[in-house]
Amino acid sequence: MNAAEIRLAYDRIRPHVRQTPVLELPVGSLGDFPVSMKLEYLQHTGSFKPRGAFNTLLSHDIPAAGIAAASGGNHGAAAAYAARALVHAADIFVPEISDPVKIERIRSYGANVHVGGGDYAEALIRCDAHCAKTGAFSIHAYDAPATIAGQGTTGLEWQNQSGELDTVLVAVGGGGLIAGIAAWFAGKKTRVIGVEPTGCPTLHAALEAGAPIEITPKSIAADSLGARSAGGLVYDIAKDHIDRVVLIEDQAIKDAQKDLWQNYRIATEPGGAAAYGALLSDAYKPEPGERLGILVCGANVQLPALDQTVTKA
Amino acid sequence: MNAAEIRLAYDRIRPHVRQTPVLELPVGSLGDFPVSMKLEYLQHTGSFKPRGAFNTLLSHDIPAAGIAAASGGNHGAAAAYAARALVHAADIFVPEISDPVKIERIRSYGANVHVGGGDYAEALIRCDAHCAKTGAFSIHAYDAPATIAGQGTTGLEWQNQSGELDTVLVAVGGGGLIAGIAAWFAGKKTRVIGVEPTGCPTLHAALEAGAPIEITPKSIAADSLGARSAGGLVYDIAKDHIDRVVLIEDQAIKDAQKDLWQNYRIATEPGGAAAYGALLSDAYKPEPGERLGILVCGANVQLPALDQTVTKA
Repeated sequence: MNAAEIRLAYDRIRPHVRQTPVLELPVGSLGDFPVSMKLEYLQHTGSFKPRGAFNTLLSHDIPAAGIAAASGGNHGAAAAYAARALVHAADIFVPEISDPVKIERIRSYGANVHVGGGDYAEALIRCDAHCAKTGAFSIHAYDAPATIAGQGTTGLEWQNQSGELDTVLVAVGGGGLIAGIAAWFAGKKTRVIGVEPTGCPTLHAALEAGAPIEITPKSIAADSLGARSAGGLVYDIAKDHIDRVVLIEDQAIKDAQKDLWQNYRIATEPGGAAAYGALLSDAYKPEPGERLGILVCGANVQLPALDQTVTKA
Repeated sequence: MNAAEIRLAYDRIRPHVRQTPVLELPVGSLGDFPVSMKLEYLQHTGSFKPRGAFNTLLSHDIPAAGIAAASGGNHGAAAAYAARALVHAADIFVPEISDPVKIERIRSYGANVHVGGGDYAEALIRCDAHCAKTGAFSIHAYDAPATIAGQGTTGLEWQNQSGELDTVLVAVGGGGLIAGIAAWFAGKKTRVIGVEPTGCPTLHAALEAGAPIEITPKSIAADSLGARSAGGLVYDIAKDHIDRVVLIEDQAIKDAQKDLWQNYRIATEPGGAAAYGALLSDAYKPEPGERLGILVCGANVQLPALDQTVTKA
């Protein structure tokens, strides 16, 4: 994975994705350093995921059976959205535990939604069986080159908008987003730092162990950041091009959701607020004058749940 | 009021306000025309109002008694916020009908909040009495040159960001915002079009009558757009420099709030969604290729109320 592949991905997906804007906060706003807050939650479907989904669909021959994905969350919504835009059939396999509102949303993008299996792993087995039987093309949520290159366009676009940042903070789930961004900034000035909840230290654990290892995700942000293990491709990029991963408590994530709503009127899901939470909680402390980027990557939250967080956090 | 005064205002307020970003939606996103959506709801206090408040405080000698304002809403919050930032005392007079959450917010900015009077007019009488007695400086919500010039910086900034737009849609309450924006674009290519709820046709009625006239505001957006009459200064600018005012039903406002949440994850108050509602409801129909600007100007909504709107609208 290199910058040229990410540039190619950007050319490919540009007609289909939003160029999400950046809120520039000068020195003195959040400390003695300027902050570039990239509002990627304004992307189609409320998360960065369509970048990878569109790049995948546009760089592969899609069979008449269409595409399939296993996800009750942001990946499922993005896969369904991209498939509809490119006029492919989509079958999305969601576990029984999925939020009915999220299931309805995936259905609203025109996908066939199959509810079944107790967790993500079981939904994935059903998805794989469907692909084996029908020939449908399976889109992986994070550990595939086209997905990683697509998510990496977030880094390219951000640099176009804000110039050379010293550091960017990026939330980590399966790691497709941070791997793409790290691949974009590889060899450049910008350091890439991952942020994970203490209860979902997927990439942190992999980097400590020297290889992806299995963890049991447990966090308020588990619905978007709760991968059981980092992908192999993700790990290979991360070990070379990510500065480090910082861990934050769930309370720091809730505090960040509350602060983003109260001071910016930005509604976020827990995973979308995590990068900002690393700054607020001092898990990451910038130097004076350091040009800091914070990626706000998802807003798929139910409003009553967000209200609970901002009134009680 | 002219462009030079607005430029001066921008130089003055720039260290204190956010440059709010623009979401550029290319041809095909919302129709056969490109849209520049200015996200002014990301401003401090959740609305455009601090622009006028800062310009007022920075262009007047403020007495030791500080400043005063009558408003239980966005103006009160902005006046309190600006006063705190510039280290002035603030007394904000809010009517008894005001939302307790909004009162708490004004208090959180360090203001002395005086709750009393049945409506805005009675709160204003109390505010005026306070100023007469203490010598405090009164900030008008919309009909003062410094307020209008401050709000007009929204137009200047937008042009810097998006170039020459053909048309901008702007919600109208008392009219300070649209008057400032119209003054900025006066003599330029960009047409300025106001948007009012059918139940609060303050400026529309004034332009029809040939002078400001009294109306009885009644709309879901009355808390921010419900002025009883346009100001004299506002009217003088509007009659010369506003193309026209379009009226939309409350349902169009609710539909716009719902659409902004579902398709953009932008949380808005009713008044903040009104300009977008004019496009959605066809109250304003752009020509093919017309470069349209939509100002999203406020997000001070309670999350449970927004949830009601987006799940039921």
